[in-house]
Amino acid sequence: MTTTRRLGVAVVGAGYWGPNLVRNFRASDEWELVAVCDRDLERAQRVVGGSRDVLVTGELTDVLVRGDVDAVAIATPAGTHGTIALSALRAGKHVLVEKPLAHSSAAARLMVTEARAQGLVLMTDHTYCYTPAVLRMRELIEAGELGDVLFVDSVRINLGLVQPDVDVFWDLAPHDLSILDFILPGGLRPTGVAAQGADPIAAGKACVGYLTLPLADGAIAHVHVNWLSPTKIRQMVVAGTRRTLVWDDLNPQQRLSVYDRGVDLVQQSVDAADRDQSQISYRLGDTWAPALPEREALGAMVSELAASIREGRRPRTDGAAGLRVLSVLEAVAASTAAGGALVDVSTTDSWLERV
Amino acid sequence: MTTTRRLGVAVVGAGYWGPNLVRNFRASDEWELVAVCDRDLERAQRVVGGSRDVLVTGELTDVLVRGDVDAVAIATPAGTHGTIALSALRAGKHVLVEKPLAHSSAAARLMVTEARAQGLVLMTDHTYCYTPAVLRMRELIEAGELGDVLFVDSVRINLGLVQPDVDVFWDLAPHDLSILDFILPGGLRPTGVAAQGADPIAAGKACVGYLTLPLADGAIAHVHVNWLSPTKIRQMVVAGTRRTLVWDDLNPQQRLSVYDRGVDLVQQSVDAADRDQSQISYRLGDTWAPALPEREALGAMVSELAASIREGRRPRTDGAAGLRVLSVLEAVAASTAAGGALVDVSTTDSWLERV
Amino acid sequence: MTTTRRLGVAVVGAGYWGPNLVRNFRASDEWELVAVCDRDLERAQRVVGGSRDVLVTGELTDVLVRGDVDAVAIATPAGTHGTIALSALRAGKHVLVEKPLAHSSAAARLMVTEARAQGLVLMTDHTYCYTPAVLRMRELIEAGELGDVLFVDSVRINLGLVQPDVDVFWDLAPHDLSILDFILPGGLRPTGVAAQGADPIAAGKACVGYLTLPLADGAIAHVHVNWLSPTKIRQMVVAGTRRTLVWDDLNPQQRLSVYDRGVDLVQQSVDAADRDQSQISYRLGDTWAPALPEREALGAMVSELAASIREGRRPRTDGAAGLRVLSVLEAVAASTAAGGALVDVSTTDSWLERV
Amino acid sequence: MTTTRRLGVAVVGAGYWGPNLVRNFRASDEWELVAVCDRDLERAQRVVGGSRDVLVTGELTDVLVRGDVDAVAIATPAGTHGTIALSALRAGKHVLVEKPLAHSSAAARLMVTEARAQGLVLMTDHTYCYTPAVLRMRELIEAGELGDVLFVDSVRINLGLVQPDVDVFWDLAPHDLSILDFILPGGLRPTGVAAQGADPIAAGKACVGYLTLPLADGAIAHVHVNWLSPTKIRQMVVAGTRRTLVWDDLNPQQRLSVYDRGVDLVQQSVDAADRDQSQISYRLGDTWAPALPEREALGAMVSELAASIREGRRPRTDGAAGLRVLSVLEAVAASTAAGGALVDVSTTDSWLERV
Repeated sequence: MTTTRRLGVAVVGAGYWGPNLVRNFRASDEWELVAVCDRDLERAQRVVGGSRDVLVTGELTDVLVRGDVDAVAIATPAGTHGTIALSALRAGKHVLVEKPLAHSSAAARLMVTEARAQGLVLMTDHTYCYTPAVLRMRELIEAGELGDVLFVDSVRINLGLVQPDVDVFWDLAPHDLSILDFILPGGLRPTGVAAQGADPIAAGKACVGYLTLPLADGAIAHVHVNWLSPTKIRQMVVAGTRRTLVWDDLNPQQRLSVYDRGVDLVQQSVDAADRDQSQISYRLGDTWAPALPEREALGAMVSELAASIREGRRPRTDGAAGLRVLSVLEAVAASTAAGGALVDVSTTDSWLERV
Repeated sequence: MTTTRRLGVAVVGAGYWGPNLVRNFRASDEWELVAVCDRDLERAQRVVGGSRDVLVTGELTDVLVRGDVDAVAIATPAGTHGTIALSALRAGKHVLVEKPLAHSSAAARLMVTEARAQGLVLMTDHTYCYTPAVLRMRELIEAGELGDVLFVDSVRINLGLVQPDVDVFWDLAPHDLSILDFILPGGLRPTGVAAQGADPIAAGKACVGYLTLPLADGAIAHVHVNWLSPTKIRQMVVAGTRRTLVWDDLNPQQRLSVYDRGVDLVQQSVDAADRDQSQISYRLGDTWAPALPEREALGAMVSELAASIREGRRPRTDGAAGLRVLSVLEAVAASTAAGGALVDVSTTDSWLERV
Repeated sequence: MTTTRRLGVAVVGAGYWGPNLVRNFRASDEWELVAVCDRDLERAQRVVGGSRDVLVTGELTDVLVRGDVDAVAIATPAGTHGTIALSALRAGKHVLVEKPLAHSSAAARLMVTEARAQGLVLMTDHTYCYTPAVLRMRELIEAGELGDVLFVDSVRINLGLVQPDVDVFWDLAPHDLSILDFILPGGLRPTGVAAQGADPIAAGKACVGYLTLPLADGAIAHVHVNWLSPTKIRQMVVAGTRRTLVWDDLNPQQRLSVYDRGVDLVQQSVDAADRDQSQISYRLGDTWAPALPEREALGAMVSELAASIREGRRPRTDGAAGLRVLSVLEAVAASTAAGGALVDVSTTDSWLERV
Repeated sequence: MTTTRRLGVAVVGAGYWGPNLVRNFRASDEWELVAVCDRDLERAQRVVGGSRDVLVTGELTDVLVRGDVDAVAIATPAGTHGTIALSALRAGKHVLVEKPLAHSSAAARLMVTEARAQGLVLMTDHTYCYTPAVLRMRELIEAGELGDVLFVDSVRINLGLVQPDVDVFWDLAPHDLSILDFILPGGLRPTGVAAQGADPIAAGKACVGYLTLPLADGAIAHVHVNWLSPTKIRQMVVAGTRRTLVWDDLNPQQRLSVYDRGVDLVQQSVDAADRDQSQISYRLGDTWAPALPEREALGAMVSELAASIREGRRPRTDGAAGLRVLSVLEAVAASTAAGGALVDVSTTDSWLERV
């Protein structure tokens, strides 16, 4: 597409997610796959295949010393993200990290701080944000098509694998939270978090989770995640003052619907006591389902990584986005421990402003 | 059907709901409509129509002194339920009260106490409980078809009329709560209530509400009520250890579905530390949609009233059921005032045992 | 709305459909209900109710002699439509006839001829055509939103009452045919009719019917009517060169959908032999669901009757429309008798032009 | 699974379908892939991959002379099926042929005759018949769960590729016809075929097709195939005297539904003239959705081929099945040429009995 040289990338971690990254970096015009690094050399070799142009190594240092590696993509277990990312950033490499950004917000803050200090790109691979549906949702909200957001209701339930190491909030809610962070103007900045989990099968962790996120100006977001539901639902409603959007990810024939329906409050009096008497009006307009291209999300994601590096700007799902999601997940744990009480997450924002 | 004489009923209140009661009492073989009472005599007359056999009066006393009135059905504004019901009970009449039973749990307790003292029937008209779908749900749960209840998720959302006097919890949640009280073994006895409301259109009251009800043994119930949703959903999932039931009230072709799917936890060790390692197994069995008769709920409700009077037993939706619903609604208000914190409702149960 | 005097109407026939006509004429600002005529006087009286301003009679003559009767609405058994309509037309009255217009196309022709000779309105009550969905379909097609019609596929199936006197074609297909006549530019003018019926339960008449109607320019319409289907479907697809419309009458949340999708044939060569090589292109555009008002069809129908009388024009569903539907139904009988062979119906058109 | 030696197979044709056959023969415990034959040697080699144990050849003879080849699987263009299959059968090999069995029923008859003469298996790869849903449909019908079949209605429509060489009947209807042949007791034996095609986009061939197949005892089958529909539907209704089955292939959450609903005709009189008066009764019972395993159809197909060879019996989708499908497709062409008239296909049956 352009005559600029391709950017070089090394993928660290050849387990579950790594091969997907390898495949998409290889398919991209903007990237050159330089190396694949995994302690299990055989696994790394299998991902690379027959090609002799790609370095296969078990040592991160081998990757970091190379001049032709512009970026390091990390797809190792979450507990190791911080250490690897910091090493890469200190070696002057841009960094892409599989979600979650880190295992704790403390680790994530170190990563964000280092990236900002070095002037390097730190991107979180919030893959869902790069699906055609979510990209379109962001565009519609940004263009003001929905007006101000009134509420968001997200349901992500099915008969799911009870995970050995994390509860249903950590397993499923990162999808909803990263999408909220992506589509809400200004990102996900709840005024608090209240969460209720249930473990009715005595699995030793929450299998059913409800997550409430009050937003500014009286708006609210709510997430229902569930491993025990025999029916599968992947649906998000974003209601605005002008229109409302429904994303039904399991309906390929009409994934996005935009309803020109809603409730309007016509303020007729300056007297606050009259508020109840203000007139309510209802709009019952058309519904519209935008056509969406069929495109792999990961392809759009690696393009965004390249663009942000070339343009010297923050990527759409940067380290701060990953940190905001982690902060909410930690607040969820705090809230469930406190019986579902509303707990604070606001420190992330002020911290991000100071960095 | 039987040779017993019909029971006599007087309907008090000829506004919105009264005419429905009148029509159903008249259509029943078990009831004789004796009187209709409303301060607006013309309205009462209109409900009665041409018939000269029915007393039309503006005075409650005219009704209470009559020997042929066995029961009084109250369909006046909620604030007057208590006073009218107490008068009727003291006059020795059985009482049916339109929901909510009263405007406060304190008033409801007086009513329950009086009815028990007098040995009279006090019934709450939780109409939804007498629909074929809910009756069948109760039967299935009672028969053990679902096993133990793991979670209940109820969604009742649409573009609704913003009510002048009540918020969305008081407007819509009584339906969900009375159904929960009806179908859960032992009634609705949450170990607490946590509620989050939102008023994003500045209507002066919650227009979006999320209500979490932890139940015994780690189970949980959750209710989403919403006046601002452009799509209409009336759906309740009741997940059990054996099977899961989904009630979709807007799908007349398949209102109830019973899924023989779920997650089983196979305990393999007595060592508590091994809990995470216990084996999870998944059932993926058939789905079954029981045929439901087409029958008006109010007809079944007035039959239950007659049966409970004749058999000298509590009706299925008695005063205690109405009181339990009110207690949860009051706890909702307390929880939202406390920022969504989990608040207690357990006193209702112990109080009911003492009466 | 206007100061013009109301038009006077007499309803003949107080059985199944008559009361609906009475109710809608009464609710209309444009009509004055003058008389109800039925041999069963008691039934006629019941429909009129207490009012003393409406003549109740068993004699058609009593109605026809009155000067304040502008129009006669006929809701008697189909076999009597012709005789009554002709008498009314000869008495100078405009005529509305419940569908089917007559029991045979021969009778219908007499009616159309008489109405044209007298310069009076003859309208067929094709009620479905006045529903908000069908009115909107007509508007969209008329405005060219669909382009040229390519095919129409209509399905009207459910577990239906096996009728004692008519087969499934006569029972159900008139709905589809009258709608086709209403929405297709130029009305329903098939180049032939081929029909296949089946009677697998030995009911003595077709219970399952398939009806194919080749249209001009290679287009085609197809109708599936069925009394034996356990699932209920009411769906019509109208595919055009520009867009395609789907009407799903059982989906109140999205009755009409307009798909901006289709196949285009890009003719690149004048050589007929190359036709197969001409390029096909696919459009995959947005979907759009117009909001529809909630309005009773019969109200719009009686308005159209009044307007056509006042404006001295043919109504939207005139006698010719009723005749075209009858002609197709008679061709269906001829085709099924001939083992499903394509039979002609074109004489209706040329006849209509000559009248 | 058993200690018997694996059967050897050669796949002829390495184009579109061949690789799928290769993959499934290799994945099977019962088969040994011995050779891949294609005139394009490079293509054949690509399908085989690195393995040196599989013969790659451009000559059919190389395959037929080998003693370790028990069966030949043909995935070449339809026009060559006959010649290759006859050579293989004459060389004593069992034969599997990709659908359609041949390009004409005449060719297919030669193949069937040869296979029967040699006592070899001739199987048509009607893949759809080996999907879990269709296998279950066959079982349910065979077990009498539906009673006698009353009608079958199949819809297979979407925005499809206009094929250069075949019309929509030949492109899509073979799926429906082969499934009908598979599930109907006794196979697909219509008493005639009537077909109507339309070419509204002037593509030079039918793009919309309706196909009616009267069956014995008044039953009927109907197929709607369509390349021009913006909505995608894959649905088959099989209505029986006892129950009705609906297969919705695009609803993974409930692919098969069995409705215990229907119409019963209660014969009360021996007088034929009373037939219309016989009593109709309606059953409105439960709906049941059997769980289906997730299993690849081709795997079950190659198992059936192995089993039929080992057991010396005809496979479930044998050459006769392929011939019956071809005969109906040829009748479709004859019927459309005759303006949709009902044409005969019965000769296939009597011919098959004589072979």
